[in-house]
Amino acid sequence: MESAITQDLLINMVLAEWKKQNANLDKLLDTLSPEKWLQAIAPGKNRGIYLVGHLVAVNDGIAKFLGIGEKLYPQLEGIFLTNPDSTKTEMPSLSELRQYWTNINTRLEKYFSTMSAADWFSRHTAVSEEAFAKEPNRNKLNILINRTNHQSYHLGQLALLK
Amino acid sequence: MESAITQDLLINMVLAEWKKQNANLDKLLDTLSPEKWLQAIAPGKNRGIYLVGHLVAVNDGIAKFLGIGEKLYPQLEGIFLTNPDSTKTEMPSLSELRQYWTNINTRLEKYFSTMSAADWFSRHTAVSEEAFAKEPNRNKLNILINRTNHQSYHLGQLALLK
Repeated sequence: MESAITQDLLINMVLAEWKKQNANLDKLLDTLSPEKWLQAIAPGKNRGIYLVGHLVAVNDGIAKFLGIGEKLYPQLEGIFLTNPDSTKTEMPSLSELRQYWTNINTRLEKYFSTMSAADWFSRHTAVSEEAFAKEPNRNKLNILINRTNHQSYHLGQLALLK
Repeated sequence: MESAITQDLLINMVLAEWKKQNANLDKLLDTLSPEKWLQAIAPGKNRGIYLVGHLVAVNDGIAKFLGIGEKLYPQLEGIFLTNPDSTKTEMPSLSELRQYWTNINTRLEKYFSTMSAADWFSRHTAVSEEAFAKEPNRNKLNILINRTNHQSYHLGQLALLK
């Protein structure tokens, strides 16, 4: 089998898994009533809406790591990344978060479709050239592998709202 | 960058993520007291020990998909894959499950270290040659990508026992 073919295939496999996890959140958002998302996934743990905002904020951060550009919604960082869940925090509504989610993923997928294999294997923006020379696994595709698993982790928690 | 290099690199990235998720379960097993594992992750949901057994049984199943051989502990299938959690089910102790977990992962890692890139891109045993010709993504490496995400999903749930 030619290496160039398997290389593209592998990138597509990683992309497909990322899209699948995005779609799994969409499916859950379609299924559960809006009230459900205001409940905690377990007593004393994060609320559904917080975890949705967290996943939205993490996907929004991918753009910067990949050198695509700045975050679309930097205001989510303080609410869903830096601080823990609190009913005292003012946060976007579920429907607003869902709109952000769609906008962020559309932007990312559009950019991904223009990326070559070499782009995916180039260093992400949070690693120096020196460090990357020693650890070539710290590339853009690895960001996506890592974020996909992070997404699965929280989807397992959100599934408890069912 | 040469394709052969990036191909091996990508396989190593996928393997590293799988090992990381295995290590995350080990870490959790080291951290939580044995009593904690008998608790449900949330009211009315699976117990910790059931999810550990489920992850052990799923990793045991990888051998068959990859053509390595039969399951080491086929008795786990009925308890942790086919049937839901029940306090009425007789199941192995946590320390037995942990021993199985180590044995299974040691066997897999040993085999993985002998696999070439071409091996990883060959079809897994649950897909026919005809289907694989049309969908070359249904290869052995994809099994590992998929199982890693499955593991993250349940690790997110198990983290609630903390």
